[in-house]
Amino acid sequence: MTNQQGYPAGIERADAASRIVLVCEHASNAFPAPWGPLGLDEGAQAAHIAWDPGALGLARGLAARLDAALVHAPVSRLIHDLNRAPDSPGAMPPRSETLDVPGNTAISAQDRAARVAAVYAPFHAALAGLVAQRIALGLRPVIVTVHSFTPVWHGRPRAVEFGVIHDDTRPGDARLAREVLAAAWAMTDLRAELNAPYSAADGVTHLLRLHAVPYGLPHAMLEIRNDLIASPTAEEAMAARLAPVLARALATMEGGA
Amino acid sequence: MTNQQGYPAGIERADAASRIVLVCEHASNAFPAPWGPLGLDEGAQAAHIAWDPGALGLARGLAARLDAALVHAPVSRLIHDLNRAPDSPGAMPPRSETLDVPGNTAISAQDRAARVAAVYAPFHAALAGLVAQRIALGLRPVIVTVHSFTPVWHGRPRAVEFGVIHDDTRPGDARLAREVLAAAWAMTDLRAELNAPYSAADGVTHLLRLHAVPYGLPHAMLEIRNDLIASPTAEEAMAARLAPVLARALATMEGGA
Repeated sequence: MTNQQGYPAGIERADAASRIVLVCEHASNAFPAPWGPLGLDEGAQAAHIAWDPGALGLARGLAARLDAALVHAPVSRLIHDLNRAPDSPGAMPPRSETLDVPGNTAISAQDRAARVAAVYAPFHAALAGLVAQRIALGLRPVIVTVHSFTPVWHGRPRAVEFGVIHDDTRPGDARLAREVLAAAWAMTDLRAELNAPYSAADGVTHLLRLHAVPYGLPHAMLEIRNDLIASPTAEEAMAARLAPVLARALATMEGGA
Repeated sequence: MTNQQGYPAGIERADAASRIVLVCEHASNAFPAPWGPLGLDEGAQAAHIAWDPGALGLARGLAARLDAALVHAPVSRLIHDLNRAPDSPGAMPPRSETLDVPGNTAISAQDRAARVAAVYAPFHAALAGLVAQRIALGLRPVIVTVHSFTPVWHGRPRAVEFGVIHDDTRPGDARLAREVLAAAWAMTDLRAELNAPYSAADGVTHLLRLHAVPYGLPHAMLEIRNDLIASPTAEEAMAARLAPVLARALATMEGGA
């Protein structure tokens, strides 16, 4: 069950000039060996339970416009969710929203550990190394994670279009998220909300706690409703709307205004 | 100036049975290529500014008695202090206590980044991987770092013999440290103090913030006055005194007493 080489994180524009480091934990719906599709049919493999549709395209559009580094997941979140601790119920969920995930119903401790070794550990080592490199170079990162959420969840429609989430470990953790929200309200007509459709209290800031909080780095988690980024054209259009929002938020925060 | 391979962390007893994972960030006074001894004479290379004398021997004695994993530094803290962020003044200090460190007075950003790539990043990746593996296996680590401190600092003698330090990021971070202190007072005649000779406010809990706090793991940083562990015999004797202290602290904490 082990994969000797593992699946390394995707890294693009590692030497980009911006302080912003974009991260896309749910970029991929790949189900490679040795796991395969975990018993899911093709529809389920393409659905939001397997990945965040549109998030990688949006993140790439932002990276190009902001000249920012981008680190993204190489496999489906159902193999190991990179934004959950290895013992979290959501790391390798046996059920996601309304669907069973047969390949995750009876995972031995050794198989869990093998997924950690092949997916979780190399991803976080790569991101940690990039963050430490940039800190050493005097270019303290601003960590921005890029996600998408489903418009209807457990039968209920979600009105929010753009959620901006921050961790809650330390005072000051909300700083960048509040600036992003303010810029979104000023510069776009998106229905934007703070800590929606969920928040740090729901356990969605694991990656920020590993990589941003220990160094006191500004951070935000962006959540875009996935019907707004449902095609490459829509991803590009959203990147064009949100890149100036991020740029303004960062400039305002750095200016101390 | 780069070292392609880097200097991997020392890892001993990776599969040990105890939840305790011992870490010795200042285990070594090795000054390997490409840095060499940074202009220090042999006396300075052997002094506490270069490493924590006695800490590795003590940690090994504890690891053997507790059946615990041990992760330790491969090079001197003056090349890169593994318990400081790469942009911290103490990471590659140009001056330590009363002594200049010539090789650290004018480090370029590229040389800082090379030290991070060769020393800091691989050490923390190895420790993070071990922690994640154990979490996946259901053996949530208890992180205990092992340090020593000099009896006289800037001319002032220190009366404390055994300091137990905890991070201050989250409520509950003090839990294990308080149990260790209580056990030390009950079981030894060491002069033991909480958060002495320094505390999280002095920036000494960087490693705990990277590896323990994000997962909510119990943790403590042990500081032993180095005149008490100044020979292999003394290291062994101290390990024999402190191993039961750690065992009792862990048992009490797990029992919820």
